[in-house]
Amino acid sequence: VSGGDGFADDGFTVAVAGLGLIGGSLARDLSAHGVRVLGYDADRAALDAALGDGVIAAALGDDWSGLEAADALVLAVPVRAAEAMLRDALPRLGRARLVTDAGSTKARIVAQAARLGIGGRFVGAHPLAGCTRSGWAASRAGLFDGATVYLTPSDESSPEAVGLARSMWTAVGGTVVQMAAEEHDRLLAWTSHLPQLLSSAFGAALAGEGVARDLLGPGGQSVARLAASSPDVWRDILADNAANVVDALAGLERQLADVRAAVESGDAEAIRAWLEMGREWGAREA
Amino acid sequence: VSGGDGFADDGFTVAVAGLGLIGGSLARDLSAHGVRVLGYDADRAALDAALGDGVIAAALGDDWSGLEAADALVLAVPVRAAEAMLRDALPRLGRARLVTDAGSTKARIVAQAARLGIGGRFVGAHPLAGCTRSGWAASRAGLFDGATVYLTPSDESSPEAVGLARSMWTAVGGTVVQMAAEEHDRLLAWTSHLPQLLSSAFGAALAGEGVARDLLGPGGQSVARLAASSPDVWRDILADNAANVVDALAGLERQLADVRAAVESGDAEAIRAWLEMGREWGAREA
Repeated sequence: VSGGDGFADDGFTVAVAGLGLIGGSLARDLSAHGVRVLGYDADRAALDAALGDGVIAAALGDDWSGLEAADALVLAVPVRAAEAMLRDALPRLGRARLVTDAGSTKARIVAQAARLGIGGRFVGAHPLAGCTRSGWAASRAGLFDGATVYLTPSDESSPEAVGLARSMWTAVGGTVVQMAAEEHDRLLAWTSHLPQLLSSAFGAALAGEGVARDLLGPGGQSVARLAASSPDVWRDILADNAANVVDALAGLERQLADVRAAVESGDAEAIRAWLEMGREWGAREA
Repeated sequence: VSGGDGFADDGFTVAVAGLGLIGGSLARDLSAHGVRVLGYDADRAALDAALGDGVIAAALGDDWSGLEAADALVLAVPVRAAEAMLRDALPRLGRARLVTDAGSTKARIVAQAARLGIGGRFVGAHPLAGCTRSGWAASRAGLFDGATVYLTPSDESSPEAVGLARSMWTAVGGTVVQMAAEEHDRLLAWTSHLPQLLSSAFGAALAGEGVARDLLGPGGQSVARLAASSPDVWRDILADNAANVVDALAGLERQLADVRAAVESGDAEAIRAWLEMGREWGAREA
């Protein structure tokens, strides 16, 4: 990394709280870029592994001791935990010019930062790099390569904090897309939370029918993949984004009711027309 | 191929009607195994390509001329088209000891074979090897390698026909699973037709919201993949299997209504318990 935006400076120090899939992968990439990384994880084994692998230079204490040395703090924990962590870390934030997170919903954590009086330094972030595996063992270099990373600065966020957040996520390979936290949460209800619910509903329905996953063909497996995601992580996301999630679910249920009516009445052309809506949309390859 | 079950004999001739993804791939594999393959496709360009590539030894005429030389006939066309084809091909079936198909639903085509008086020679088949691409250009050697192939012989089916069908699908790498046609159609409504509908519904819902497919992360893409499938192929499948599909849809809609109620009421533990059903099912890796 080179340039004069702070993030590239010698000795720039980033504290990463939560060394799971996202935090662990970020710590690996930042450390490989010459950034000094401090780490914290409630799971001592993960912390020791990150120290042992040389990914983090030092561990923060349970009381956030050591955080004073950080130029930036990244909270890479589930969304509810991030709110509590932000409050607890506050007294030790010291010189940090950027406080950010990696959670899947943004409105609540942005509001929490404002409440705590650190809205100027806070820039919410959400890298689209989740997968069904989690923990330090699932983390890897290059996870964010080519991934969309949403940044949701508020009106309060300082240009310096926004610049640092952009530099950090760009340095690890992410493509930064900026939008308001509320807009993010509405969009993600459709693009991320809804497919998680469809995959989980598919799993729950087949479990109820006694149909095992290995009876699926390649197409069914692709729809089933997300069902294996962590219920703890997703409970928080869905609860946090309840109103938007309910809208998206209701929209999807209307589609299913439409096609069920067409199938029930044996109206082949109505079935075809309904399928065509999804095909037109889906044919635009990502 | 070796052995004395007929399929392995020198000069054994298989006619494949429909040289799309399934028929074209089957023709490629059979031909590579030394089977003499006759081909037919309503699309003259596909037929010429299969002849030019040396995959088929000769083309059948539009009036099914040439079919008399076939020891087996495979109808690899959408389910409704297969019913009409079977009727039209009947006068030329000649010495064929196996008549089979590759359609996604089985009860109707099995009934049609019985109606036409060829129930003894008919063994319905369904290889789980579809994908969203189609046509001769999408066909490839090895498509069935490791794929489940459902065989749905009726009480009428001769042991010889069943043996030939098993030999053929096993020779091209398939894992044969035998069950009654009605049981197949009930199972596939859940394992195949339902995920297609979920993916299409997801696409239709996002299209309605104006959310483009390239805004999805990896998880959303995985759920969206099937939305690109052919509406013509799926219209027929869904119309054919209407009663089972309606049952599966209703089961899925109950799951979505349950989770929507939990999210709406902010009941985090109910959300978690609901997600856990899908996770337990999905964690059993295929």
